[in-house]
Amino acid sequence: MNSNNDFKAQMERKVRKIEEILQEYLPKQRGYQSIIMEAMSYSLLAGGKRLRPMLMMETFRLYNGSSKALRPFMAAIEMIHTYSLVHDDLPAMDNDDYRRGRKTTHVVYGEDMGILAGDALLNYAFETAFKAFVTDPEDSLLTGRALTVLGEKAGIYGMIGGQVIDVKETGRSVSKDMLDAIYKLKTSALIEASMMIGAILGGVSEEEVKKVEKIAEYVGKAFQIQDDILDVESTKEVLGKPIHSDEKNDKTTYVTLLGLEEAKKEVERLSDEAIRLLHQLSGENQYLERLLLWLVHRDR
Amino acid sequence: MNSNNDFKAQMERKVRKIEEILQEYLPKQRGYQSIIMEAMSYSLLAGGKRLRPMLMMETFRLYNGSSKALRPFMAAIEMIHTYSLVHDDLPAMDNDDYRRGRKTTHVVYGEDMGILAGDALLNYAFETAFKAFVTDPEDSLLTGRALTVLGEKAGIYGMIGGQVIDVKETGRSVSKDMLDAIYKLKTSALIEASMMIGAILGGVSEEEVKKVEKIAEYVGKAFQIQDDILDVESTKEVLGKPIHSDEKNDKTTYVTLLGLEEAKKEVERLSDEAIRLLHQLSGENQYLERLLLWLVHRDR
Repeated sequence: MNSNNDFKAQMERKVRKIEEILQEYLPKQRGYQSIIMEAMSYSLLAGGKRLRPMLMMETFRLYNGSSKALRPFMAAIEMIHTYSLVHDDLPAMDNDDYRRGRKTTHVVYGEDMGILAGDALLNYAFETAFKAFVTDPEDSLLTGRALTVLGEKAGIYGMIGGQVIDVKETGRSVSKDMLDAIYKLKTSALIEASMMIGAILGGVSEEEVKKVEKIAEYVGKAFQIQDDILDVESTKEVLGKPIHSDEKNDKTTYVTLLGLEEAKKEVERLSDEAIRLLHQLSGENQYLERLLLWLVHRDR
Repeated sequence: MNSNNDFKAQMERKVRKIEEILQEYLPKQRGYQSIIMEAMSYSLLAGGKRLRPMLMMETFRLYNGSSKALRPFMAAIEMIHTYSLVHDDLPAMDNDDYRRGRKTTHVVYGEDMGILAGDALLNYAFETAFKAFVTDPEDSLLTGRALTVLGEKAGIYGMIGGQVIDVKETGRSVSKDMLDAIYKLKTSALIEASMMIGAILGGVSEEEVKKVEKIAEYVGKAFQIQDDILDVESTKEVLGKPIHSDEKNDKTTYVTLLGLEEAKKEVERLSDEAIRLLHQLSGENQYLERLLLWLVHRDR
């Protein structure tokens, strides 16, 4: 746990565990429509940090949770994150042909199937979470609380809302207040959902869940600003994607708005505050602390 | 109840009641993203028969249900039906500029917002259904059962699955077996969900829900074949949309596959069977019987 290599090895083990859970909850190929299950797998198993299920699992562990509802919710949150990427990449949205070095879903399966695969992943995310009513029937009200958070943070008052502002304002001059709204909704909302659902299924009070929400909000924002910084400071080789893309796309970011130094200070401030609040929670998880610090200070 | 005029008047009153429920559950305009709430309202309040919430309500009434979870589920099923139309009309799908005489959502709000409004309606449908955990906390397992049906019938083993086969096979020669799969999934699935959820919230056994599912399957299929017949036999004036569109789009239907007379016989057969099963249910609702007969024999 103390050395950086131990942390990385631990993280890789956890990612493998999450991949297994995703495999387990993938829909079975069936019927004349089996192409859609194929497109869903293609999108969902494209790699990535699996950040959201990991944060959910580690917040749950912080409270020594034992609910059997955790696994379906871990799969569900990653499906929601994935559908948002699939629709984001569509020609009418960001029009991206590649993501993480692989062709995007609509490029492989066609634009109509790209739209339907996104719809299917969003719908199947909820179907998957509903399995918690079967795996954990005694705790159906807890499942209900977790579902309510998942729905709200993924919707128009959460992630979709952020997406809407982002799409609407692209190319126009964006104020600091508006940029904060985009980051809060587009990036923080699903991270908040991840950690809050971990806490809810861990059996803690509403008050404690509120604290967790705040930590996740700060982490999400710092994570997004670090993205802005890497787009300016990193190299294509390290990042695995073109740099200076924000400048090219005339995109307002924390770096273009406040400058590099102020953006870095903001990451420090948010990350310090998140860790301070983390220490006030009623449980402890050293790996989670390490993970949060890594997320906001990562180099790719 | 006996005369046709009474039935029509009763139906109109019920539609108005459903419109009120939809209004009640529409998302409030809020934040920089308020354009999305506007697009959702535009799509959802475009009129229509409100068939699915009506079938849910009437099946619930058949069992003298009293659960407070009914209203959010009625709103939810109409939101899911609406999102499917919004995405169906997109340029990469059917590319329709008009629906029921009004411009489609992406024509008014742009293609990017059309995609997001569909996503938002699907997500918000589940958010709305989750309100049942608040309105009816004692019955959270019942809500869980209703949610499970809603998710499955709307997803890849239901409506989306039907959409996928339809998109994939357009212009190719479609077998009877494949056409049955499309009708079962694309049209019957949401009608099954509507009636099944009405029954579940009405507090009946799994066995009784299965019977209701079968009735809904037949009604949905007869409804769809009647659509095929009207496309050939009706006029643009009565139907409110161009006729002979299936022929123009080279679309396989029950009429192109079996001929007009056989298609009509199939509607009769399915409708007789549905009514026969309806009489075997443990409750009675004369308006529902009238409604089912009207649906499969309507002239527009």
